[in-house]
Amino acid sequence: LQGPVSLLLADAAVELVPREISRHPSVEGYARRRGKRPENILLDSSYHYPAMRGLAAAEKRGRPDILHTTLLEALGSPLNKAGVLRVFCHTQSGLIIEVNPSVRLPRNYDRFKGLLEKLLVEGFISTERGETLLRAEKRGLREWIRENYGDGAGVILLSETGQPASERMLVEQASTGRAIFAVGCFPRGDFSEEVKSIAQGEISISCYRLEAWVAASRLLCLLERGFAALEGGGLAPDIT
Amino acid sequence: LQGPVSLLLADAAVELVPREISRHPSVEGYARRRGKRPENILLDSSYHYPAMRGLAAAEKRGRPDILHTTLLEALGSPLNKAGVLRVFCHTQSGLIIEVNPSVRLPRNYDRFKGLLEKLLVEGFISTERGETLLRAEKRGLREWIRENYGDGAGVILLSETGQPASERMLVEQASTGRAIFAVGCFPRGDFSEEVKSIAQGEISISCYRLEAWVAASRLLCLLERGFAALEGGGLAPDIT
Repeated sequence: LQGPVSLLLADAAVELVPREISRHPSVEGYARRRGKRPENILLDSSYHYPAMRGLAAAEKRGRPDILHTTLLEALGSPLNKAGVLRVFCHTQSGLIIEVNPSVRLPRNYDRFKGLLEKLLVEGFISTERGETLLRAEKRGLREWIRENYGDGAGVILLSETGQPASERMLVEQASTGRAIFAVGCFPRGDFSEEVKSIAQGEISISCYRLEAWVAASRLLCLLERGFAALEGGGLAPDIT
Repeated sequence: LQGPVSLLLADAAVELVPREISRHPSVEGYARRRGKRPENILLDSSYHYPAMRGLAAAEKRGRPDILHTTLLEALGSPLNKAGVLRVFCHTQSGLIIEVNPSVRLPRNYDRFKGLLEKLLVEGFISTERGETLLRAEKRGLREWIRENYGDGAGVILLSETGQPASERMLVEQASTGRAIFAVGCFPRGDFSEEVKSIAQGEISISCYRLEAWVAASRLLCLLERGFAALEGGGLAPDIT
């Protein structure tokens, strides 16, 4: 195992309520119930659906629950507990969110949203001792990846139309220490052009269309098994 | 593959607010905001923590989010999509909840809670065409399992102190068509005496203590791989 495995949660449907609908009754009422200003709350289609009808690409937006469930899966994985997973998130609105592997995210959805709202307004979440747990930055994905992974780095998209990948292929890719696997965290449609433009491959790990959290858990499970087989370690049950 | 694989979500921390705390301000205020009567809402430690201090075994109760995330993982799994998974739930309050494999549960936590509240008050959730999606019944777990799985049926507990299990062992057990794997859906502590009394084994699938949704996804991933290897099917990537 040369280095960490990276998991990019791509095109996440996470953003603050856009100004153009911040005066809509379904948004204002919801913000009032939560004691917040409309522009400081996350867009959430479960509550703001009537307001979202006018938004462009509305069917792909306003689903922070997808990122929540997928982050809980990824951060709770044996691979992360073993210290070899690096998770980061890219949102449709153009933010990069860096995730400290040791962060303990709220299990409760409302509290998770409260945390993300604070993150998106203030730019970071840190502990009392000054350790950064989450950081959000408006950045181009291509540029951010080049800075963090070097020239020529790219991502491998998980998609049901990709090339079927075996466990061995996954582990070989992961073993380079530069592999970034991308799972889409949006409710429908395809990856954005921005994400597709940095793709170096597109793989499939199931014959079914999987939700983001299931795709992430299957990918991580296969990598855990592969690494355990390589190292004889305790990450996963033995293959026999 | 002889029959379905069963997954028991055991000792789930799901119950309606108990009468003894239904007049507590944190419960009444929360019920009012949701437009419901206190006795018709789910106990949730994120909102009712101050009221829960007086309850017995409070640290194990009031976490419907654990069942939610774990159900989303299980119902979204390739094994369920292939039609060979049977999921049911047992709560600390003594209910058995049967889950139709084709139910599409709300991804939003508030809506999931609303659905469970209706289920716990009315006993079932069905479609307009009369198909039952969820059914809740006050039943002894041992008796329910005997009726549904026959005499001598028991469950295999997933626990970090269990015997390390290989993929082959899991698949052999699952292939009998009578195996019931139990994942605990409570925040801390041990399985209840009721669950332990019907355990026929205790296995571990990781050297880490896993959250319920991670344990469920790893178990199902290993079973999917095992079945794919047996059948040459498309449930999971090939093992080479």
